[in-house]
Amino acid sequence: MQFISFVRRGECGFGALVDGGVVNLTGRLAPGVDTLKAAIAADLLGAAADYVAGRKAEHALAELTLLPVIPDPAKILCVGVNYEMHREETKRAKVAHPTLFTRFADTLVAHGDVMVKPAASDCLDFEGELAVIIGRGGRNIAEADAMDHVAGYAPFNDGSVRDFQRHTSQFVPGKNFPRTGAFGPALVTPDEIGDVSALPISTVLNGEVVQQASLSDLIFSIPRVISYITSFTTLQPGDVIATGTPGGVGERRDPPLWMKCGDVVEVRIGKAGTLVNRIVAE
Amino acid sequence: MQFISFVRRGECGFGALVDGGVVNLTGRLAPGVDTLKAAIAADLLGAAADYVAGRKAEHALAELTLLPVIPDPAKILCVGVNYEMHREETKRAKVAHPTLFTRFADTLVAHGDVMVKPAASDCLDFEGELAVIIGRGGRNIAEADAMDHVAGYAPFNDGSVRDFQRHTSQFVPGKNFPRTGAFGPALVTPDEIGDVSALPISTVLNGEVVQQASLSDLIFSIPRVISYITSFTTLQPGDVIATGTPGGVGERRDPPLWMKCGDVVEVRIGKAGTLVNRIVAE
Repeated sequence: MQFISFVRRGECGFGALVDGGVVNLTGRLAPGVDTLKAAIAADLLGAAADYVAGRKAEHALAELTLLPVIPDPAKILCVGVNYEMHREETKRAKVAHPTLFTRFADTLVAHGDVMVKPAASDCLDFEGELAVIIGRGGRNIAEADAMDHVAGYAPFNDGSVRDFQRHTSQFVPGKNFPRTGAFGPALVTPDEIGDVSALPISTVLNGEVVQQASLSDLIFSIPRVISYITSFTTLQPGDVIATGTPGGVGERRDPPLWMKCGDVVEVRIGKAGTLVNRIVAE
Repeated sequence: MQFISFVRRGECGFGALVDGGVVNLTGRLAPGVDTLKAAIAADLLGAAADYVAGRKAEHALAELTLLPVIPDPAKILCVGVNYEMHREETKRAKVAHPTLFTRFADTLVAHGDVMVKPAASDCLDFEGELAVIIGRGGRNIAEADAMDHVAGYAPFNDGSVRDFQRHTSQFVPGKNFPRTGAFGPALVTPDEIGDVSALPISTVLNGEVVQQASLSDLIFSIPRVISYITSFTTLQPGDVIATGTPGGVGERRDPPLWMKCGDVVEVRIGKAGTLVNRIVAE
């Protein structure tokens, strides 16, 4: 099953993708459950599948404006340096724990929306990643239990303003410009993904493959990342973990390859979907 | 004027400190303005001063349980390495921009509440800091205008779990354990503070002064920090900036001085108030 968040006739809502259209689920699963995050928190994605079974699409996708899969996660944690080739190209030492930084929710944009190159920088880089959307929350989640806490997956483009990222040791400024984090198109449930480590991942800029790897290449697996994160903070339904980007980022090319106004960037992750965004100048 | 957030008889509210007691402002300044953050967003702190003028305290402080000054800021940004003595003791290179990391709101505790030493670590360190609470929000705020965007100040203890902070290059894990960030007692308005750079700051652990400096020692001034932060993200009313800690942290002592169960830690910042917390084990 695939779930989207959207705006339709000025109202936010969510629904399921069926036959290239959408079954609207806004308020239909339980009173007050008007967002995908609320449906996840109420553990209603299974009920949603039952509701959708046998129904036809009510809305064409063209009737809707997509929102980021979860428009307002309480916590967005991103893993840096989680593919060996990217670790080598960034010349970072091997570490025993995942490298983590945060994004604010106002950095997110949807599939099909524009990513914004800031006026303050010409160094906007792509980072294709698989995002994990948390289902059941928790603290101190064991690796063996971690996959039970995953609601689903979606492509993520962790757009990075490299000069600001390198101002100091901490990545936060370069990762938090408005509308630099693309997240979509849909939450794809684990049953539809199957073995997540079998997913291919590639980033395509203006038709050229610039990053290519497999989720089996992750240095820190998804269960390990969830377990480590919940060793210091509580995850809640709808929280998002961007699991890191493969080698090939624009900053490490010679000459560097920055995204510029008019570029089209795609993150392709097999059954988890393809995220497409155009770059505009601020 | 000094404003607090509190719980009274199970209900959250906010008020002004008057004669050692509290004038309740919850819902009194405008319909629906039930929190200090909402009052700041509606630009009602001036109206609050008018409302309070001539009134007597309605509640004794003992009737209330204090909350963090702003219990749920949308953004909490913390400056690392912002006093020269702390930069020297941490052996970090000089940088041209403020070093920034983030906290989640669920790390906050109030004045008088307990700070929690995690079960996972014995390396809980103190960091006395001045917190700035944002009034009018904005993006790309010029240094010359930045102080017009400050609603007020409060002491902050940026409790740091050093082993987790040092796991990788990024500080996030060590700064985001639940209930490690103390914030209070009150928002003190700029007119009551006067020249913020004249404020003394000290941290006192079990009666012993362990950090001592002046806000005039900041490497990056408050206007510079606000200007830099808003060069990459939009600040909103009630957002919080912890401005960094002086030298003397426990990690850099020989032997290291960690906070342990039963310790009492104070952050004293002159007219901005004194924050007191006891340490408990998780």
